[in-house]
Amino acid sequence: MQRTSFKDMRCPIAQTLEVIGDWWTPLILRDIAFGLTRFDAIQRDLGISRKVLTDRLTSLLEHEVLERVPYSEKPARYDYVLTEKGADLGQVLLAMKAWGDRWALGDEGTRVEIRHRTCGGMTAVQLRCGCCGEELHPRDVAVAA
Amino acid sequence: MQRTSFKDMRCPIAQTLEVIGDWWTPLILRDIAFGLTRFDAIQRDLGISRKVLTDRLTSLLEHEVLERVPYSEKPARYDYVLTEKGADLGQVLLAMKAWGDRWALGDEGTRVEIRHRTCGGMTAVQLRCGCCGEELHPRDVAVAA
Repeated sequence: MQRTSFKDMRCPIAQTLEVIGDWWTPLILRDIAFGLTRFDAIQRDLGISRKVLTDRLTSLLEHEVLERVPYSEKPARYDYVLTEKGADLGQVLLAMKAWGDRWALGDEGTRVEIRHRTCGGMTAVQLRCGCCGEELHPRDVAVAA
Repeated sequence: MQRTSFKDMRCPIAQTLEVIGDWWTPLILRDIAFGLTRFDAIQRDLGISRKVLTDRLTSLLEHEVLERVPYSEKPARYDYVLTEKGADLGQVLLAMKAWGDRWALGDEGTRVEIRHRTCGGMTAVQLRCGCCGEELHPRDVAVAA
């Protein structure tokens, strides 16, 4: 079934979903951000079909979220690396991680901890207001008239 | 085609996608967060089928992201409102908005501006480190060993 595209919607959330909204895509970006940059490594980690992974990587290359860097010529093999545009999607992934840690993961097992290199501490990401710099809660924002 | 569930993955991003990863779901949550709380209003705004909207709302109710508040008894009609768990997903939507504004929306047309009620200013959401409180860039984090 052909899915409705969000391409023509004048909404930044819709536009972001057009790039990362496919099933599996955020997990592929997570793997690449965490250093799994090769096709076989990602495929093995996620256990997805080669066809699905190829489709998703092709789309991310077209959207200039990823670029390919050759590491072998014969056969031609590539590392998939984040562009600046792709690295900036880390803010969406980190927001998902924070929500999942808080609300969806349950109490069992160990959690992946994230270190903020700048301060050296373990961090849970928060939102901050780009205007006043203080912590920002989603309930404290409104669409401006 | 049955889609692979992420339910058994021990990853907070996968768990978040299990709740909001369906096509259309983040836009439904956006509409509700912005005050379109009734079935017909959401359906009209997004132009989706009643069946898809019913499926997505049912799933969000099951995940306790939404709750229903009756506003009419005969016929039975409801407002869909965010629970605390659902309102907290605002951080993911705001991170998507910030990325879409920066990278995907292009220069044409007007943008939706968001006001931070606490300081009164127009805000572009940033990430901040929950440890040191400073702005956090996705490139500055690493998975802790």
